[in-house]
Parts: sequence; C-alpha cells; structure tokens
Amino acid sequence: MTETERTNSPDTAQPGAAKLPPIERSFPRSHKVHAEVRHGDHVLQVPMRRIHLTRDEGQLDVYDTSGPQGCDPRAGLPRLREPWIAPRLARGDRTPTQMHYARRGVVTEEMAFVAAREGVDPEFVRSEIARGRAILPANVRHPELEPMIIGRNFKVKINANIGNSAVTSSIEEEVEKLQWSTRWGADTVMDLSTGQDIHETREWILRNSPVPIGTVPIYQALEKVKGVVEDLNIDVFLETLEEQAEQGVDYFTIHAGVLLRYVPLTASRVTGIVSRGGSILAKWCLAHHEENFLYTHFEDIARLMAKYDVSFSLGDGLRPGSIADANDAAQFAELETLGELTKVAWEHDVQVMIEGPGHVPMHLIKENMDKQLEVCHEAPFYTLGPLTTDIAPGYDHITSGIGAAMIGWYGCAMLCYVTPKEHLGLPNREDVKQGVITYKIAAHAADLARGNKRAQERDDALSKARFEFRWEDQFNLGLDPETARAYHDETLPADGAKQAHFCSMCGPQFCSMKITEDVREYAREQGIDAEEALEQGMADKAREFAATGGRLYRPE
Amino acid sequence: MTETERTNSPDTAQPGAAKLPPIERSFPRSHKVHAEVRHGDHVLQVPMRRIHLTRDEGQLDVYDTSGPQGCDPRAGLPRLREPWIAPRLARGDRTPTQMHYARRGVVTEEMAFVAAREGVDPEFVRSEIARGRAILPANVRHPELEPMIIGRNFKVKINANIGNSAVTSSIEEEVEKLQWSTRWGADTVMDLSTGQDIHETREWILRNSPVPIGTVPIYQALEKVKGVVEDLNIDVFLETLEEQAEQGVDYFTIHAGVLLRYVPLTASRVTGIVSRGGSILAKWCLAHHEENFLYTHFEDIARLMAKYDVSFSLGDGLRPGSIADANDAAQFAELETLGELTKVAWEHDVQVMIEGPGHVPMHLIKENMDKQLEVCHEAPFYTLGPLTTDIAPGYDHITSGIGAAMIGWYGCAMLCYVTPKEHLGLPNREDVKQGVITYKIAAHAADLARGNKRAQERDDALSKARFEFRWEDQFNLGLDPETARAYHDETLPADGAKQAHFCSMCGPQFCSMKITEDVREYAREQGIDAEEALEQGMADKAREFAATGGRLYRPE
Repeated sequence: MTETERTNSPDTAQPGAAKLPPIERSFPRSHKVHAEVRHGDHVLQVPMRRIHLTRDEGQLDVYDTSGPQGCDPRAGLPRLREPWIAPRLARGDRTPTQMHYARRGVVTEEMAFVAAREGVDPEFVRSEIARGRAILPANVRHPELEPMIIGRNFKVKINANIGNSAVTSSIEEEVEKLQWSTRWGADTVMDLSTGQDIHETREWILRNSPVPIGTVPIYQALEKVKGVVEDLNIDVFLETLEEQAEQGVDYFTIHAGVLLRYVPLTASRVTGIVSRGGSILAKWCLAHHEENFLYTHFEDIARLMAKYDVSFSLGDGLRPGSIADANDAAQFAELETLGELTKVAWEHDVQVMIEGPGHVPMHLIKENMDKQLEVCHEAPFYTLGPLTTDIAPGYDHITSGIGAAMIGWYGCAMLCYVTPKEHLGLPNREDVKQGVITYKIAAHAADLARGNKRAQERDDALSKARFEFRWEDQFNLGLDPETARAYHDETLPADGAKQAHFCSMCGPQFCSMKITEDVREYAREQGIDAEEALEQGMADKAREFAATGGRLYRPE
Repeated sequence: MTETERTNSPDTAQPGAAKLPPIERSFPRSHKVHAEVRHGDHVLQVPMRRIHLTRDEGQLDVYDTSGPQGCDPRAGLPRLREPWIAPRLARGDRTPTQMHYARRGVVTEEMAFVAAREGVDPEFVRSEIARGRAILPANVRHPELEPMIIGRNFKVKINANIGNSAVTSSIEEEVEKLQWSTRWGADTVMDLSTGQDIHETREWILRNSPVPIGTVPIYQALEKVKGVVEDLNIDVFLETLEEQAEQGVDYFTIHAGVLLRYVPLTASRVTGIVSRGGSILAKWCLAHHEENFLYTHFEDIARLMAKYDVSFSLGDGLRPGSIADANDAAQFAELETLGELTKVAWEHDVQVMIEGPGHVPMHLIKENMDKQLEVCHEAPFYTLGPLTTDIAPGYDHITSGIGAAMIGWYGCAMLCYVTPKEHLGLPNREDVKQGVITYKIAAHAADLARGNKRAQERDDALSKARFEFRWEDQFNLGLDPETARAYHDETLPADGAKQAHFCSMCGPQFCSMKITEDVREYAREQGIDAEEALEQGMADKAREFAATGGRLYRPE
C-alpha cells in the first residue's frame, strides 16, 4: 500500500455547496489522502483523512466518509467504480451482486477497497459477505460510491436520514444535508423524501453521494397511486423499485414482515404502529384482508434487486414507538418473519440487513440483539437508536445515543441517527450535525468496547495530546475541532493560551495534570520507577527533594 | 397524605435571581405542590412539581429539586429543618447523624421526608441507611435543606458541579448556577471553588441551597498554606473541615485512599493522575515519604464529621483520566482502601459514599460497579460519568451520559454530571443546563431499566400524549418544555398546529400515528379485536370496508 496525497480544492466556488462552510474550517490541519491499493488491473484509491499533529507527534489517519470535495453538483462526483463494473456487465453477469461474487470465491474491487478502509484482509471481507454476516451495499448504477461494509466484525457504521416532505425543504437543501452529513461522518444516507420531485431529488442525491443511499420505496409507490393505500399493488411497487434501482439506490427498506395476522397485536399498544411504511401496509392488509403483497411477492422483489445489487434493508414496520411497547409480541413476531425472508433473499444472492427499534429501555436492549442474531441467521442489524426513555423531546439524539452505543457494543452493525428534532420537526443543518456527531460517539464507543484497535489508537492519541497540553492536537483529533476550539476560547481566547500548561477549569496554580507532570519529573530526576518506589522506604529521597527546594508549583 | 397547593411567587424582583428567566417559563402549566406528611409533632411539607395536562387527562406529579422560589438570596431559604434538629441538639446528642439514629431504630423527620419523596416506606429508608446502603446527607448546620437520599434502591440522583476558579466567575454567578442547576433537576451540588472568597461564596451557596452541598476541603486547606503542598498537615486540614462543617456543608470529598505505595502505579499511565485532590496528595506523599495524612488521621476526621453529620464522599484520587488507563492497578488498589475506610467511618456512625470514575469504555463499566459493591460493602457509588470515549471534546456530556446511564442501571446511586465544556473551559449557564438535562436523561433511563414504577409512569404519560397529538402535554411532560416547544415551532409555528393531528416530519397526508388511529378506529367500528382478527379470515369485513368507502386519508 502506497499513499498519494492530494490537496482538497476549496468548495466555495460551487453552487449548492457554496453555502456550507469550507471543509478546512471544520477540520483544521487535516487533509485527504488516498492509500493506493493494487487489485488486478486496477489501482484503488482508498480515502482517509490525515490529521497532522504539532511538535514531533506525526500524524493520525482516520476513516473518512466526506467524499471528493469541490465537485460541481450538476456534474456529480467522479465515477470511481465504472471501470470495475463495466467488465462484469459486459461479460453478461446476470446477478452482479457482491454476495454472488463472494460465494463464488471472488474478491471484487469493492471488497479490496473496504478491506483497506477497515484495515483487514480482503479474504475476510469476502467470507463475511458470502455467509451473509456483512453487506456491501453497492448498486451497479451508483458508480460514484466509495465502497463501505456493514457487519458486526467491522467498524460500527451510522446512517443519517435526509429528505424533503410536503411541508418544507428543497432539493438544494437536501444535497447540502447529504454533503454535511458525510462531512461529519455519516456512512450511509437515507433519502426519505415524500413530497413533490421525489425522482429529481433522488437523482441529485445519488449523483453527488460517495456513500450508499437507501430509500423506502413504498413512499413513492404511494404517490403513484395518489395516496390511496388500497390501490397499492405489486405492479406499481415493482415499477417503483425498477425506477429507483435504475437511478442507483443502494438499499431498499422493504416492510415485508408486516403480516396480516400481526396487525391486531398492535391494537392495545400505547403507541400503535409508528413506522410510516408499517402503518401503510397494515392499512392495506386490513382493507383487503389479504396477506401483505410485499411478503407474497417477495421473490419477485428479490429477483429485481439482484439485477442491480440493491441490498434489502428489511423494515421493522411493527417496531415499538414507546418504552411501554418495547419487545412485545408484534415486534418479535415480525422479526421472525424477517429471518425467514432473509433466507429467501440469500437464495437469490441478494444482500440483507435487518432494521430494528426504536424505543427500548436499557435492560431490554440486549434481548433485541441476541434475538435478531438468532432468528435472522446473523444478517447485520441496523437499528434506530434505540431511545432509552421517552421523557426528553428535544434531546432524543441523547436518549437514543445511549441505546445506540449499547446495541453497537452488543453487535449491531449500523446505527440510524436521531436528531434533536425527532418527534418535533424536521432537522435543520445544525440538527443534522448534532445527530451525526452523537452517533459517531455511539459508534466509536461501541468500537472501543469491541476491541477495535484503530478506535483505541485515536483515543490514545487524543488523551496523550490532552495530557501534554497540546491544545491544537486535542481539538483536531476530536470529532468536531471547531466546536472544541470555540469552547476553549470562550474562557481563554488568547493564542498564547493554546501553548499554556494549564486551562481555565482550574487555573494556572491548580492543575492536576500539571502536578502529575511534576510528579513524573521528580520521579525521573530521582530515578524512581514504579517497582522501586514500592520497595524502597523512600525517606532519604524525600530529604533530597526538600534539600533541592522541591516545590509543587513553578513560578509562573 | 394530604396536599396543599401553593402559588410560586415570581422571582424576578430579587437581586441575583433576577437574571434567571422565571421558572414558569421553563415549566409552563406546572406548579409546586407539597404533600403534607405527619411525623410525630411535625407536619412535613414534601415538595413536588405538578404538571397539569390538557383535555381531561388530569395531572402528573414529579420529583422536584428546585426548592422554594422567590426568596431574597441575602436572607436565604426558610430553615425547614430547624424544628427537627433543635430538640436533638438540645437533649445533647453527640452523634446526631442519620446513621446513628437509623441504627437505633429511629425514623427521623428527614427519613420520613425522603420516604414520601420517593414513594417508599419510612422504615425501608431507615433500614437502608442503617446498613450503609444509602446515605441521607444532611449537616445539622444546613437547616435549609430539603432532605434527599442516595442509594441504589432509590431513584438515581445526579450532582452538578459549580464553583469559581482563579481565572473567572463571581459569587453572584455561582448562586445563580446553583438555582439554575436545581431548577433543571440537580439533586446535589458540589462547590468546587478554588479562588478568592471561598468562604463567602460557600456561605451564599449554603444559605440558598435546598439540596445537599458537597465540597473538596483540600482545596481550601491548600489555600491556607499558600499553595505549598508540602506544608499541608492534619491540623490545617481539620481546621478547614471544622470551618466548612460549621457552615453546613453536607458531604466532603476526602482523598484518603491515595496511599504512598499506590502513587508509582500511575507513572506509566497515559494520563497520570487527573484528580486535583489526588495529585495534591500524591505530591505530598512523595515529598514527605510518609503515608497520606488523611489516611493516618482518618478517625480524627470521622469524629469531627460525626458531630455535624457530614457524610464522607471517599474520593477516587487515582481514577483514570483516559480510556487507556481504565480499571488499572492504581484505580482498583485505591478502591480497596476506600472499602477499608468505609468500615472505619461506619464505626463512628458516619455516612459514606464512594466516588468512582471517570473514563471507562463500555465493556469495563460493569466491573467497576461490581467491584465497588463487593469491596466497599455496598456503600453507595457516586461516579463521574464515566466517559465512554475520549475523542469528542465539546460533547463530553454525551460521551459520559452513555456511561452514566449504564452504570446507573448497574447499580450506581448518584451520577456526577459532565458539561459540554469538560476538558475545555468553565461551564456557563447554558452548559450547566445541558449537563443537568443530559444527566437527568441518564438517571431516568437507569430508573426505567431498574423497574422504577414512577419513572415508567412519566414515560407512559408522555408517549400517550405524543400518540394522541396532545402537543402541549408532550412538551410539558418532558425534561425541557421550552426547548421542545421551540423546536416544534421552528417548522410549524402557528398555534393551530398544536391542535393538528400531524406534524412537520411527515406532513398531513403521511402520518403513521394518524394512520394507526384510523386502523384502530376501523377495528373498533367493525368490532374486530386482536384475538378475533387472528381467528377470522376477515374477507367479508374487507368487503364491508370497501362498500362504506373506506379511505386511508380523511380529506383535510
């Protein structure tokens, strides 16, 4: 693996992107580098963000989702995967899915790419995809994608939701939210648009997205039948899938587990059915008194998705909408059906992940994860939070960040973010950032708890910088350098304070880290190491110290 | 138990308090009520906040820490406990501690008060205090206190830190931060002042505090010896304790577990010693090559604290300051010593809680809790977070809120808050609020996970309000009604929208909760219940539904 370094172009000249602050302001002393990985005839350019440290501390490379910067959104991103995909289609592969190749022992360019991104062996990536324990969502019509992997033996991923609704927001805003989300670390983005211009919005998003894009196709299908749920049918649904797959959507949420017989199980819930897709299908089932057409036609759907390598995100339409409804009969009945459908999808070489809740108190979270692994044959789990309490509207990024970190530790593969506006309104740019950062924290805390070495390295680098009063490094190694610096500067704005060996919390005369430095220096000067100190009485050393005028504080 | 309702006076007329927004703005449709509890000759007035709901939904009473409102800070709060304490001292009780009374089978007024606050039996409160599994920090010189209890069989509590430092902030600001902290739910407050006017600042805080106040007396002792650590000794320390105990401080952090032989165990840490108290004592031990004088004179300290009923908060001076240092030999060695000292304190009838970390990755949190219970004989644990990752300066309320919720669930009794400014600067008013709300979330999530019925009631009430589109109730039942309302109004500001049966996330035509309502209504109209629906084919019902023009959406 060799590395080329590229300087990011400023993105200020571009329309659409112009309103976002430049990425250099968000991440000072960082720039994008690409590891070059040879794979067959191709040289893969695997992106990372390099954080340059001060003094002689070198640098730290971190996983990077921001994608190419400075592209004209009207032209879209470079078509990175085109040379990889073209030969497969040219030779007539009819099931060009990553699972198909993996099962046949082929390590694709995409697999080699994610192996380098994650720091693992390409063969391991292949084997995880082959057995369905990880997915690599990568529609053959989405060549702009920088491949990534979702599975519990890899870094925990996060998803950000964007999408306009009938009430508010424009296409430009949605593209900006996409760029903003991936800048802060979103690994995938779901376009949940339901208003006008669904098709066009999605086109802009796909052509500008370096990350997999997911959708909930039932929303658009419903638009096609003018909002009359009873008029939904498999034909209009397949037509919608084909339209979206053609555009390049990487994964579809499909609520095929909302079975007719499960719907009445929700009637006595505190909050009934809270999934939009779930409630549409429940309504359809009741109105027709027939089984959910997504379930009865599941193989038709899988065949269509196989052609493009769109992954299933099997939707939990009956997920709980409140703490009171967590882990109930309706939820777990649906989960069993999703497990059954997972096997059907796998028969068609289609990749699958499973969506999960929602609202779950802490003591019931592990049961969700364990049951999902068991009944869904270890297909990756993709949860929405879960929120661990309902009493904090306005702070549901936090109520859910707690649950997300925990279920990530327990084995969840991807965490769908929740913003502070959840239950209250549509997120604006700042809300999106708060949601993404909170979920990066949750995912990273989970990575640490799972023993991920790269995660630990970043913590250690930041802790060391903190202890050595390298303020700039402490800011820049964090998830949000700009905010950290601004908080520091509120109390000690002078530039000199960034070199100071103290901070505003305790003041110059009262700093525990400074005292520890003194303790270490003293121990070093006196030749005391840990073992020795325990063995010796040290009384004479004390006298020496006093004699040399040992003082706690140096004069400032 | 009967109830009197009192109208809060506006607090706008008072100096100092004048700068805080009125409490009615923070909590609309709420007011303070007092449950009247007869205990011997006394009628105890136990505070709660009553939230009035809309329509015919009644009200919900919640635990309230805000204290009496509208008092002149120069006069201080009413001296609620004076008539309870006076007879004890008049009859010459020389160990007027709650533990002393509890062990002799006496249920004090304080115990009866907290029993009503928590909704448990007074005898249970007594027995938990008697066996050391809970503490009721209540200095006999702090009569303004509204008693509360810290123990793992009660509601999880939270602490907020305030205190000026040499660099910034004034006495007025600190009193305001106290009032602001307790408004949002701080159960205790620690005054960590280290600058000038320590004594006077503390006096103002105590006379205006309805919650227990904790301090770290070594800070003031060090001021008394002009910052020269080597000059610290037990006499100046006891003098400091007496001064603070006389003023009414309810618990002291005492770093008596930082033993000489443990100090070198920290030398190879990534972040050494990060506790201010811990590093002072480590320095003292090394300089003198003697054992920590807080350890060698521990019984003198306990005897002094017994006279006033000041509780021990045995400080973890060797707690880890980074993920890398979690659960190491130094930390656990100190914890064992704290367990040994707990027994000594109990011999003197002095109440004890144990301080804990700090920085701990998720998978190592439970070990902290289990070990603490084991080696500290079930004395209550009081932890600082713990932070579950170090990579998010500016967001450490969240990195630590995750760990706090988890350790609360595992059995921690009190959670010391962390604000967004942790590691960066001193918290301002907004930071204090963010810290307190985040920790209320963590504590409440822990209460839910532990099966606390009152906690569940509040979640259920809010979830029901959400599902029934009672927007005002959803806001007012939350931890921060003002913020929830403001977020909602950003997208749908019209007052009519508060009655709307939809919200901005999905728009009027696409609301899953609305669809569920329709499903339920249909099920009711057609006489379908859950069981029946599962048994019947329901085909004829479908025909009926179609014939009556069943539609998903009502015309808006």
